[in-house]
Amino acid sequence: MEKLYVIKIGGNIIDDESKLFSFLKSFAQVKQRKILVHGGGKLATKLAAQLGVPQQVVDGRRITDLETLKIVTMVYAGLINKNIVAKLQSLESNAIGLTGADANAILAHKRIVSSLDYGFAGDVDEVNTGLLSTLLNAGIDIVFAPLTHDKKGQLLNTNADTIAQEIAKSLGKYFEVDLIYSFEKAGVLTDANDDSTVIKSINAASYKILKEKQIIFAGMIPKLDNAFEALKWGVNKVVIGRAEQLPELISGSGGTTISDAG
Amino acid sequence: MEKLYVIKIGGNIIDDESKLFSFLKSFAQVKQRKILVHGGGKLATKLAAQLGVPQQVVDGRRITDLETLKIVTMVYAGLINKNIVAKLQSLESNAIGLTGADANAILAHKRIVSSLDYGFAGDVDEVNTGLLSTLLNAGIDIVFAPLTHDKKGQLLNTNADTIAQEIAKSLGKYFEVDLIYSFEKAGVLTDANDDSTVIKSINAASYKILKEKQIIFAGMIPKLDNAFEALKWGVNKVVIGRAEQLPELISGSGGTTISDAG
Repeated sequence: MEKLYVIKIGGNIIDDESKLFSFLKSFAQVKQRKILVHGGGKLATKLAAQLGVPQQVVDGRRITDLETLKIVTMVYAGLINKNIVAKLQSLESNAIGLTGADANAILAHKRIVSSLDYGFAGDVDEVNTGLLSTLLNAGIDIVFAPLTHDKKGQLLNTNADTIAQEIAKSLGKYFEVDLIYSFEKAGVLTDANDDSTVIKSINAASYKILKEKQIIFAGMIPKLDNAFEALKWGVNKVVIGRAEQLPELISGSGGTTISDAG
Repeated sequence: MEKLYVIKIGGNIIDDESKLFSFLKSFAQVKQRKILVHGGGKLATKLAAQLGVPQQVVDGRRITDLETLKIVTMVYAGLINKNIVAKLQSLESNAIGLTGADANAILAHKRIVSSLDYGFAGDVDEVNTGLLSTLLNAGIDIVFAPLTHDKKGQLLNTNADTIAQEIAKSLGKYFEVDLIYSFEKAGVLTDANDDSTVIKSINAASYKILKEKQIIFAGMIPKLDNAFEALKWGVNKVVIGRAEQLPELISGSGGTTISDAG
């Protein structure tokens, strides 16, 4: 099977123009098939403040009312996505920018939680693997903005980590997929403030022990649970680490590698 | 050859949600291959005002400084393009939204005019006909936002009429292309204020006479010159008329049809 890298970059990279360009240079140099999923960064929050649209965040999740949906559509699908695409094009990566609405790439439904109305937030139902495979096999690199749709005309704000995971899981049948979560830390750390304490590799057995001994920072548990979930769905491995170290995350010499779901 | 409709919609339709939806319903019902090119409408001007970014318009063209480029990228490629795509998806049109940067669809260069700096405004160099043909032949409808790039990392604001014309000209080798310019009038009129004075058809010979007798409103001359230019490049016919009458523009029973470049 062809190799495929599904790489998620977080907001901190997007907010820093020179770090972003350096990351995109590393991304463009990856010779295999690749998909980039980007988050939103602080630009949407900044624009909302400029336009006087109050932002409500509950448990770390933005409540997407109609005005906020307009803002994230402008910032994520417009400003961020198209600037990344234009930069990648200059770096000889034949990038195309998509949301989940484009060619019905990612179908979702509005999140329904009885206790809280998240507004126009989407939970993923289906990834259009035919479309993505066709584009990838044509040598096109896909850049996803964190938006999906419900095929009833509604765009939906959708978590970028989730999009990356769902894409990786769905394409695991057609490609040997490595899922890379890049963020501001060097990997999964035993001391959240010390980058030298990266755990090089985690498997199902060691994860159980790390959790029991409470060695892993609680905030990482959902990310790791998701990583093991992806492995169960056929993803080859999951790597978590610093965006600036993308070549090392790809070669396996940096970050935390999660493999062997047990 | 397969039939292809390249349809441009102007700002007045985009600014009116119910008119836009009605237009998109008509567009979705067109069974042949189709490309939609949309303009910007007043949303970008409104957002610029809200954000306190002064807008400079010279000879009807917006001067695209860096802050204005950010605004049009957000509004055209984000808000307008993705909402059109999501709506079309609900109408069984498998739409994909692109700018010229995406998969290098439309390559351009920054306009250089010695007398005036238009800022980040693009003049089209090349349309990626391979990409567009592949998407169209896969049954995908393409929705273009009026932005291109220079493959050096720079997005460029580009006139939607020009984009429609360049696409139609380039694809004329591969499809039987009808180029439809929809706007707020019923067609080319002999009395600009009276929609019943539509000239049904214009060819090279009649155009010469209409110009000599000064029957055509001066503002239409550049549009018609462009239409004849497109015909010379292999476009089958050009139709100009009201967006609300899209089915009639397609069937030939409405609007002004320009054919026979002589």
